[in-house]
Amino acid sequence: MFTDDDLSSLRWADGRVEIIDQTLLPHELRWLTLTELPDFCHAIAAMQVRGAPLIGITAAYGLARALVDDASDDGLRQASDTLAATRPTAVNLRWALEQVAAAVSNLPQGARADEALACAHRLRAEDIAVCGSIGETGLQFLPEDTGGTLNIMTHCNAGWLATIQWGTALAPIYKAHAQGRNVHVWVSETRPRNQGMNLTAWELQRAGVPCTIVADNSCGLLMQRGQVDCVIVGSDRTAANGDVCNKVGTYLKALAASAHAVPFYVALPVSTIDWQCPSGAEIPIEERGAEELLSFLGRDSDGSLRTVTGGPEQAIVANPAFDITPASLVTRLLTEHGAVAASAEALAELHNRVI
Amino acid sequence: MFTDDDLSSLRWADGRVEIIDQTLLPHELRWLTLTELPDFCHAIAAMQVRGAPLIGITAAYGLARALVDDASDDGLRQASDTLAATRPTAVNLRWALEQVAAAVSNLPQGARADEALACAHRLRAEDIAVCGSIGETGLQFLPEDTGGTLNIMTHCNAGWLATIQWGTALAPIYKAHAQGRNVHVWVSETRPRNQGMNLTAWELQRAGVPCTIVADNSCGLLMQRGQVDCVIVGSDRTAANGDVCNKVGTYLKALAASAHAVPFYVALPVSTIDWQCPSGAEIPIEERGAEELLSFLGRDSDGSLRTVTGGPEQAIVANPAFDITPASLVTRLLTEHGAVAASAEALAELHNRVI
Repeated sequence: MFTDDDLSSLRWADGRVEIIDQTLLPHELRWLTLTELPDFCHAIAAMQVRGAPLIGITAAYGLARALVDDASDDGLRQASDTLAATRPTAVNLRWALEQVAAAVSNLPQGARADEALACAHRLRAEDIAVCGSIGETGLQFLPEDTGGTLNIMTHCNAGWLATIQWGTALAPIYKAHAQGRNVHVWVSETRPRNQGMNLTAWELQRAGVPCTIVADNSCGLLMQRGQVDCVIVGSDRTAANGDVCNKVGTYLKALAASAHAVPFYVALPVSTIDWQCPSGAEIPIEERGAEELLSFLGRDSDGSLRTVTGGPEQAIVANPAFDITPASLVTRLLTEHGAVAASAEALAELHNRVI
Repeated sequence: MFTDDDLSSLRWADGRVEIIDQTLLPHELRWLTLTELPDFCHAIAAMQVRGAPLIGITAAYGLARALVDDASDDGLRQASDTLAATRPTAVNLRWALEQVAAAVSNLPQGARADEALACAHRLRAEDIAVCGSIGETGLQFLPEDTGGTLNIMTHCNAGWLATIQWGTALAPIYKAHAQGRNVHVWVSETRPRNQGMNLTAWELQRAGVPCTIVADNSCGLLMQRGQVDCVIVGSDRTAANGDVCNKVGTYLKALAASAHAVPFYVALPVSTIDWQCPSGAEIPIEERGAEELLSFLGRDSDGSLRTVTGGPEQAIVANPAFDITPASLVTRLLTEHGAVAASAEALAELHNRVI
């Protein structure tokens, strides 16, 4: 189904990095070539690329490019600092930069740029492999007897636009679709940033997977009606007890799934498990700006992109970006190392096995 | 706190009906004078007025106005049919027209217009009284020991913009505010039509009640954090067993409230209880158009009102407008005849007492 550059968010072509400008999705598919270090920095800072894995790998390529011009220790440090500053809270971004730095810092300057590029290629290939494995893990847990169509609900965007290929939450869906299963996805719009409506629906369409956009508010009703066979979401950070921090609204879906005995799966690479974090209560919730909630970007009647703002003047807004789904509501964690119960014991066993 | 025409959605001034054009809210407060029958019809059809009680009373005044020109039986029937056709599914609209027709049909033609107007005034006064009584009922159930601020969550708009004054869900809040209690309201934006963001936040602001707009998705997190003392919502239709049909998303709030032992109240006039409907499973859910979900009306950067559209081309959308909250999740029904448990037994007792 996926060739190297089909349904991929970042490709390597003619010796250059190309990315999709995700700020224009779903209205326009525009590939951008990233040439110089400032191009890479801008792509990350302006959120032309988003999603932890994709941000990290874009930065790795950016650092490799910077070393072509200046492979000194100073050059390495400066370029790495510049890239790291583009999204100060992105853990994966710093992790990827450290991978590249570790791979080249003991090499002579003349060998550094090539090795950094090789490292970026490795990180990209590893991410594809990890997501593919998450998909294989998930495949084994998709309900079988669903009377024809398999209806899967997801939240936010945890697909190939957020990774390189496959995605995390969407990987089992793409795998099932590739096997010829009759899959249909309920895409919740994911207020306030509408990643479901704008990104997930778009990338599923591109892959030929049938999907229906619904208001986040509809997700309880759909389960009430028996129209959801399982829920699969991603995770921004998973605590050592199995509590899941993910895009705000995930918790409400988990509550509804529990009330209707709908399996609730969280798909994640093991790298997003925070082994030092004992529970979700320890995870700080990022508070974002009011404009995300009050403003809406879309096509005007003449087709041009425009932002309009709702709500009364002087509206007061709270905009927490994530919430915590307690481990007790999670049916299984789906990882590249297999499925794991969302519990401290099962995660400790996973840690001993793979870390 | 409320005088006759302050914080009212429909007022009688200089012998004429004036309404707020709610399609312009919260961006502009424009009062419209309804003079001829077509003005009344347009106000209802174009949703310049919305909310079952307000629609009904607007129609009653419209019928009274039509009888000034033609008080014959034919004139009465034609005007009533014309008004009823403006919102074919609005039960309250037809009920109000029947009230007026019943009041005048046995009178000589020369007396009909005056009596119809008197009937419209009565319906208006009754609605204000009912909502005021719902507020008094609710007052007794607001949590007392909340450490200073009383944090109440609501959904959609069940305030004075949907009725004449006070509202249903917001009536206890206005009463508590008038008593000097330190009330703060969490206003969920209420996708897809944004009635929370655009109407509830606006009307609370006008009344001086502090409020914060949040994404519908945030409501679970706010309860997780202990930031919600109770939830109060309205009801479009309540089954005889206490199941509540209300704006989609209500059910998710009820699930979260139950998970965190937050009281979940439903405020409603007894007239919205459907005694013939045994349970929520019998209530059909209206499916509305895709454009409600994909489009967003707001101020452009130059201040003009504009609609923009998100989502991919050829997006498939499902847009159920309501959901069912099972009686088991409802702490109390708050009515103009006191608080009632959400159960078939308690509702049967209420029926015997007041119907």
